Amino acid sequence: MTKENTIYGIRAIIEAIDSGKSIEKIYVKHGLLGELFNELRKTAQRYDIPMQYVPGEKINKLVQGNHQGVVAVISPVEFHDITGIVNKRVAERKNSFVIVLDGITDVRNFGAIARTAESAGVDAIVIPEKGSVPVNADAIKTSAGALFRIPVCKAAKPWYVLKFLKELNFTIIGASEKAEVDYRSVDYSGNIALIFGSEEKGISPQLLKMCDKVIAIPLKGETASLNVSVAAGILMFEAIK
Amino acid sequence: MTKENTIYGIRAIIEAIDSGKSIEKIYVKHGLLGELFNELRKTAQRYDIPMQYVPGEKINKLVQGNHQGVVAVISPVEFHDITGIVNKRVAERKNSFVIVLDGITDVRNFGAIARTAESAGVDAIVIPEKGSVPVNADAIKTSAGALFRIPVCKAAKPWYVLKFLKELNFTIIGASEKAEVDYRSVDYSGNIALIFGSEEKGISPQLLKMCDKVIAIPLKGETASLNVSVAAGILMFEAIK
Repeated sequence: MTKENTIYGIRAIIEAIDSGKSIEKIYVKHGLLGELFNELRKTAQRYDIPMQYVPGEKINKLVQGNHQGVVAVISPVEFHDITGIVNKRVAERKNSFVIVLDGITDVRNFGAIARTAESAGVDAIVIPEKGSVPVNADAIKTSAGALFRIPVCKAAKPWYVLKFLKELNFTIIGASEKAEVDYRSVDYSGNIALIFGSEEKGISPQLLKMCDKVIAIPLKGETASLNVSVAAGILMFEAIK
Repeated sequence: MTKENTIYGIRAIIEAIDSGKSIEKIYVKHGLLGELFNELRKTAQRYDIPMQYVPGEKINKLVQGNHQGVVAVISPVEFHDITGIVNKRVAERKNSFVIVLDGITDVRNFGAIARTAESAGVDAIVIPEKGSVPVNADAIKTSAGALFRIPVCKAAKPWYVLKFLKELNFTIIGASEKAEVDYRSVDYSGNIALIFGSEEKGISPQLLKMCDKVIAIPLKGETASLNVSVAAGILMFEAIK
């Protein structure tokens, strides 16, 4: 029995990637070669999709049909278009609260952030298309199912999303432990986009430049920073006060 | 070479447990029998210390010496006495902020809470002696090392700790998603003990009865609750505002 969340065949997978389908990973039969497979390999690399080499029997178990030695596992979460979501709210004269995750790669942190965001009434989560955290079963589990209820948007160019939001009068707020602005001193009214960077590198310079404010949570101890999902929780719930 | 954080020999381990040493787990050689070992088994059971049965070679690798088929792994974190910590602050005329974890068993949640607590300037974390989360290498890693910097206190009877704190005029505040008091409406001045329950069961009825207030974070989405380490972060940073 072919599993529902898979695509097989080299050409089919290349087309799925090119059309924007969110592929979690691709299983490849050991020793697979050929020009078409090379094209798939390059396409997967371009989108940072992991390839895992496995024995042919594993692929036979996953799909029935002429799989040509490759099966792609599709993310169970449907992705949304940020412009559509925000434009709709503008048309309804409602404020929007958007979270942008720049380089979060830990699946559990991502799941916890999605769970908190849904609970805080956030309108959408934006993640980069490339190098993004896999929106997989583990992320969904950690999110307590929230990933099925809050729109997740993949952006080819996150700075372009910020540019779009700026044009709609969003206040772009970055979170960084190195910032000097106390998160309690900031006005969160109106349209807000809150950006969190990766645990290692923080927000990338390109996005940091687009922030109207960069805020920090003042810490009393010797630990240099909070876990990003905890910091995100504190800031989201401060913002909706 | 015998590893530093181990104790071996049946009698030595029983005495270590009885004297209050924090044992993470005990490795037992397959097929071990005997009266003295039975005594160890019962003692370990009484304190909820996990026993793992392994081949004799594994134990030979862990220790040199007459191990009698058993090795105990000691927690790398030193435990403290909550009465000493609080009494010292009272003597210095300083307020105390204590966190009580009632039944948190997820190591990563515990580590994240310790990291946040140290960053919020919390004076001590109290965990129950029995059924407590293991304070092991994973917890330390998730805490970003904070577990070496914030005092962790094991309590044989957590309700007794609350009774002691109540006598010192602590306000005992429980966190529960079922509560009706908005966390933003509460006065956190003076001496505070903040209690968090397990993700599944919440705070036990015995401790809930001792709370002066039970507070909740009002949620806007459909997710029933926040991750406990996120909720703990929001409440700790609200309390120190």
